[in-house]
Amino acid sequence: MTAGRLEAFSDGVIAIIITIMVLEMKVPHGSSFSDLRPLLPIFLSYILSFFYVGIYWNNHHHMLHVCAAVTGSILWANLHLLFWLSLFPFTTGWMGENHFTALPTALYGIVLLMAAIAYYLLQQAIIRSQGSNSILKKAIGHDWKGKLSPLLYIVAIAATLHSSWMAQTVLVVAALIWLIPDRRIERRLELSQSLTIDPR
Amino acid sequence: MTAGRLEAFSDGVIAIIITIMVLEMKVPHGSSFSDLRPLLPIFLSYILSFFYVGIYWNNHHHMLHVCAAVTGSILWANLHLLFWLSLFPFTTGWMGENHFTALPTALYGIVLLMAAIAYYLLQQAIIRSQGSNSILKKAIGHDWKGKLSPLLYIVAIAATLHSSWMAQTVLVVAALIWLIPDRRIERRLELSQSLTIDPR
Amino acid sequence: MTAGRLEAFSDGVIAIIITIMVLEMKVPHGSSFSDLRPLLPIFLSYILSFFYVGIYWNNHHHMLHVCAAVTGSILWANLHLLFWLSLFPFTTGWMGENHFTALPTALYGIVLLMAAIAYYLLQQAIIRSQGSNSILKKAIGHDWKGKLSPLLYIVAIAATLHSSWMAQTVLVVAALIWLIPDRRIERRLELSQSLTIDPR
Amino acid sequence: MTAGRLEAFSDGVIAIIITIMVLEMKVPHGSSFSDLRPLLPIFLSYILSFFYVGIYWNNHHHMLHVCAAVTGSILWANLHLLFWLSLFPFTTGWMGENHFTALPTALYGIVLLMAAIAYYLLQQAIIRSQGSNSILKKAIGHDWKGKLSPLLYIVAIAATLHSSWMAQTVLVVAALIWLIPDRRIERRLELSQSLTIDPR
Repeated sequence: MTAGRLEAFSDGVIAIIITIMVLEMKVPHGSSFSDLRPLLPIFLSYILSFFYVGIYWNNHHHMLHVCAAVTGSILWANLHLLFWLSLFPFTTGWMGENHFTALPTALYGIVLLMAAIAYYLLQQAIIRSQGSNSILKKAIGHDWKGKLSPLLYIVAIAATLHSSWMAQTVLVVAALIWLIPDRRIERRLELSQSLTIDPR
Repeated sequence: MTAGRLEAFSDGVIAIIITIMVLEMKVPHGSSFSDLRPLLPIFLSYILSFFYVGIYWNNHHHMLHVCAAVTGSILWANLHLLFWLSLFPFTTGWMGENHFTALPTALYGIVLLMAAIAYYLLQQAIIRSQGSNSILKKAIGHDWKGKLSPLLYIVAIAATLHSSWMAQTVLVVAALIWLIPDRRIERRLELSQSLTIDPR
Repeated sequence: MTAGRLEAFSDGVIAIIITIMVLEMKVPHGSSFSDLRPLLPIFLSYILSFFYVGIYWNNHHHMLHVCAAVTGSILWANLHLLFWLSLFPFTTGWMGENHFTALPTALYGIVLLMAAIAYYLLQQAIIRSQGSNSILKKAIGHDWKGKLSPLLYIVAIAATLHSSWMAQTVLVVAALIWLIPDRRIERRLELSQSLTIDPR
Repeated sequence: MTAGRLEAFSDGVIAIIITIMVLEMKVPHGSSFSDLRPLLPIFLSYILSFFYVGIYWNNHHHMLHVCAAVTGSILWANLHLLFWLSLFPFTTGWMGENHFTALPTALYGIVLLMAAIAYYLLQQAIIRSQGSNSILKKAIGHDWKGKLSPLLYIVAIAATLHSSWMAQTVLVVAALIWLIPDRRIERRLELSQSLTIDPR
């Protein structure tokens, strides 16, 4: 059993999560600029969450790409990750509607942290299933981004006690570090592609 | 015709069911702890249902994996299963919003029971299509979990007449037994994988 | 280009349509039987529409199975079909909420009729693309169900002027005739399967 | 890594976008013609947006078909495109609910323009990844439709200052030009198909 269906199902859930978040931007009744203005914080929180969900999809995509066989514990670890991702629309909407105040921002950070932990557990489940010669283990290397992210989320959660804007800044930075491409996995993938490439 | 498209379609429906359930947790207007508290029962019912949908996806995944050809009766049996699963968001929301009172809990159990029966009918349709040498029949073996679950749902439905919390406990136990992995199917799958494994 | 992605996209849209229809059954606030009763007509209309969408998915599945190459006109004909299917949740909700009165039932029938016409156009686009030796043309044969259905929808639309329950009966009958399996296509598929079957 | 999963994920998001737009047509409580009439502008804006999303799906489908390997920048460019497409339900609903007045129409045009730019950036990312012998570059040729569309959107946005109906006309024309099939890509695809065609 390859990881195909696991990917397809996860893609479905992630695609719906992304699109459901946009529903929090309720269509206003008036048609002037002033009717749009209250939606601005919800729009900003949507952008941040879209970006985060995009990161998860991206990383998930790369990770499953080096996962040949799917075990029962991988299935459950994947569902556990999807559970926390499914809470993004709620925390995004709550944070946006309350203009990034402290408690909603902290809850947003907590769900991000839980998703990062769930992602880590899934990674470990795959590595364990691949045995001592795990391709994934070699591919992720030191995984500094995977280790730094949860730390930044904890910093952001703590920062809400002082200033929720400081917390927001940390959350934005924690997202931006993922734009730096994961050269290690890609290089290995390119290597294997050059061997199996389909000219179609 | 392989089971590929049946899986893809079922995955789509199941992915949407899972994500629609979370919409029952409406974003509160205030931003304090006390605004979150009323959502707790809805959140708990969401966790239970997420788990149940996860179990169904998991089992469905394993079952279709040993189903090579799809007949008309398999298609309809699968749609019948999806119909009952599609009612999960409604019963989950009703049970959560009414704090696990008797009637919503009973209806929740009834829909679980109908889904279990639909799953059984789908299983039988696949076995019938595979003839006397059915791989699925061998793979499921005694299927004690598939037989115990509907019994537990009936117990839970009856228990709502006495105490809805007793009913909830039964429903949680009926979910947890599925965490015990289905060694039989997995072992057979691993066997066939070891023959067809794709090193990509 | 095979029909794979066309199927996947259509499956996605159909899966969402099916699941969105269930959202019309709004979770009631009370927890007694009397709170559920107003939902009964919405539930009945949901069952009918679920069945209809299931029929479309089923037939679409069989039809694309004998479609090797996808042209531009097939793509647009398919989108046209999805457009009419996407109106099912609206007409289903309107008919259910108004207890199957005349105008909502007529509109329900009109959308069914338009979907049937769109399906026919898609069928013709595929047959045209396959040239004089079209497998689909042979497979559908006389297609009595495809020809009878739109007639029954027209009867149902006209019947709403006399009695909306008579119209409902016609719509239910028009759905039930699709339960009779399309032996012709299946037999041909089984034939081709027996040649290409994948033992996995 | 082929473009398969990128397509599947994009299909999922686009399928949900299309189906979420229809939710803006809220089921009316009465059951007479006069209850339907207020929905007409929302229905018209839905048709226009359905058509636009269909165009994007269509073009995206053709473009990814000539994309063998997916790089990190293609992934992000694709997510960027999906971000702008995900705003269609909002702008569609706002424009429809306000009867095509100036500001909602302008915002509708702006989101169309941003989606067109995002599509162009994705195209460039694929061409860059294919090197000097890019199949996509050859396939799109002069790409007069891809260049004309954003110009028309800008004209439409500017036209809202004079007359929103003039702007609407431009937007409809800008959609209709995509009905003219992209012969170049299709011809090349047919050529490659004739070599790799699967008789199944």
